[in-house]
Amino acid sequence: MSPSIHVGPGDQPELVRAVELAGGSVVSLGQADGVVWNGTRPDSLPDLPRSVRWVQLPSAGVEPWMERISATPQVTFTSAAGAYAPQVAEHALALLLAGARGIVASARQKTWEIPEHDTLAGATVAIIGAGGIGRALITQLGSFAVEVIAVTRRGHDVPGATRTLPADRLGEIWGAADHFVIAAPATDATRHLVGAPELAKMRSHAWIVNVARGSLIDTDALAEALRERRIGGAALDVTEPEPLPDGHPLWDLALITPHIANPEHALTRRLAERVHENVTRLASGEALLAQIDPERGY
Amino acid sequence: MSPSIHVGPGDQPELVRAVELAGGSVVSLGQADGVVWNGTRPDSLPDLPRSVRWVQLPSAGVEPWMERISATPQVTFTSAAGAYAPQVAEHALALLLAGARGIVASARQKTWEIPEHDTLAGATVAIIGAGGIGRALITQLGSFAVEVIAVTRRGHDVPGATRTLPADRLGEIWGAADHFVIAAPATDATRHLVGAPELAKMRSHAWIVNVARGSLIDTDALAEALRERRIGGAALDVTEPEPLPDGHPLWDLALITPHIANPEHALTRRLAERVHENVTRLASGEALLAQIDPERGY
Repeated sequence: MSPSIHVGPGDQPELVRAVELAGGSVVSLGQADGVVWNGTRPDSLPDLPRSVRWVQLPSAGVEPWMERISATPQVTFTSAAGAYAPQVAEHALALLLAGARGIVASARQKTWEIPEHDTLAGATVAIIGAGGIGRALITQLGSFAVEVIAVTRRGHDVPGATRTLPADRLGEIWGAADHFVIAAPATDATRHLVGAPELAKMRSHAWIVNVARGSLIDTDALAEALRERRIGGAALDVTEPEPLPDGHPLWDLALITPHIANPEHALTRRLAERVHENVTRLASGEALLAQIDPERGY
Repeated sequence: MSPSIHVGPGDQPELVRAVELAGGSVVSLGQADGVVWNGTRPDSLPDLPRSVRWVQLPSAGVEPWMERISATPQVTFTSAAGAYAPQVAEHALALLLAGARGIVASARQKTWEIPEHDTLAGATVAIIGAGGIGRALITQLGSFAVEVIAVTRRGHDVPGATRTLPADRLGEIWGAADHFVIAAPATDATRHLVGAPELAKMRSHAWIVNVARGSLIDTDALAEALRERRIGGAALDVTEPEPLPDGHPLWDLALITPHIANPEHALTRRLAERVHENVTRLASGEALLAQIDPERGY
């Protein structure tokens, strides 16, 4: 069966092509079984006709969509979770290296002075959240002599990690790793996962990288730990609040990249790959990738 | 046979451990078959008794030792050439990612503004010089979706590189790659390898990374290209002059790290690995790594 897919908003030539390459037909909303939606705001998506049973959203994180999703139980929503994972992981690695290697400090000085620096090789890196991004990062770290501790909800072994801990043993890692990469979904359970008590346990050279959501770190506690030089540093692609306002203390205390782990010009390329995969699966009746569970929240 | 090794100068616990783990015994100089010497000055090494047939030196470059080596033909000297390559390569990758990913620009701004940035995935990276550092970098790049063009003296295929060019075809790469990593030795032939004509051929988003020696890049030509925004940027761990003086235009135009690609505190760790390997080889009668040939000069 050739799925009838509406693609929007507006012209989306790369996504239209992906649908067609996967054997789908691109149709108006009224005729659609499925919708591929490249709009980031829930109110950009029109009311869905009864025929629609699947909506592909463009982002990996879907918090703003949860109300809409819960109100439309007859429709399967899929996120783009995992589609952008390798490029986000690449940014996480770039941030980690920039911190540990003394590049952040070097970028801010105009004199030949040795900053604190070390190799990443030989370090233990904790990756909190081993979904697509965490797993892609573990792969990328595979060619460095790094020990990886992965933390997942249930603690099932993650390929490539030296060891895996379940989320309820998270407390053990803060003193056990040299550096931390936050790559877990934003849920009520992960809010302020890194706060004052966690920061207090970290090694004095520890760098924290966040490529997930700002809410996973208690910003005030982090700023205080950085101000008192209790940890090595923080490299954040996401912040709370976001955008980080001018004059915020983190501008001086941390490295901030303005939510660019997932470069826009590479986004559509990756989303198109995911659309191709999901339309193929829809046509053959296979389970879609990254189905959103309203109960779980992602 | 268990080799009897003298380790010095003074206490060298990491190196003692490496000798012992490799099955050697640590002895006084008078009883030694071999010497592991972590002193950088040739006059720090005492006169060698006749029993000594091998000396492990701590550095990759051994120019200052050549006279001493030539005067002691009955002893095999080994350098640490190659031992530090992975950590230098790691810094090169860190610099490349910091540039291409918009981290250098982000580190210097205090407002939420999107800098020029892209993924490394999808790019073509030229690595000029595929000795230990270049090869280690190619390995590290293996888990990114990157095309690697390696340039070596003779152009023999380098494992992991998409293609390899001989040095006399270097002219072809300046317009063909997105980014450039300089990892070639400093010789008369490589002086100002990157000058105005080469810079003029590069793409406007190209980053140049130098972890070799400052003399390989024409500093004035580079500063001019950066001032006119003709290339993406430069990330330099080595400069000409070095140290780069305060007030030099490159402080604003480029990212400078103060020759920290090979961190001192990681040196001994790496030397210990090399010592372990060479003591193992000595015990089993295999050829030692990085034997110095006084005729060749390294």
